[in-house]
Amino acid sequence: MSTTSTTVNVSGMTCGHCVSSVSEELESLAGVETVDVELNAGGISTVTITSSQELSPSEIGEAVAEAGYLVVANDA
Amino acid sequence: MSTTSTTVNVSGMTCGHCVSSVSEELESLAGVETVDVELNAGGISTVTITSSQELSPSEIGEAVAEAGYLVVANDA
Repeated sequence: MSTTSTTVNVSGMTCGHCVSSVSEELESLAGVETVDVELNAGGISTVTITSSQELSPSEIGEAVAEAGYLVVANDA
Repeated sequence: MSTTSTTVNVSGMTCGHCVSSVSEELESLAGVETVDVELNAGGISTVTITSSQELSPSEIGEAVAEAGYLVVANDA
């Protein structure tokens, strides 16, 4: 089975608890297999999601917002 | 019933999740009634505990450490 990898930038994360919150919300999306967060405390963190199906920017954005954070532009 | 108020400085807390973790651990100590955290993200946060009995520095220190943070000197 092929997997899709999606990377988004997320602002406002400061610690491991933030990483857990975001990971948990994203892992609850249909088809998501892994969530990998490169934490940049107080800056822009990189979140990479692998999934068995394509994820829409809006569902990712909503999951991140649900955790209390914001997806920002990739060139930010 | 009289209550005792104890204030300690805690380093390393960065967000509301950290506040919750520390509060939860301290609230589990015998006699603790309220825990109030003044978060200074990335700096020294002030934690005020009211309790029905005197708390020892070591039990406070251990509870804070259990949450993953460090009590630092009051004059730090």
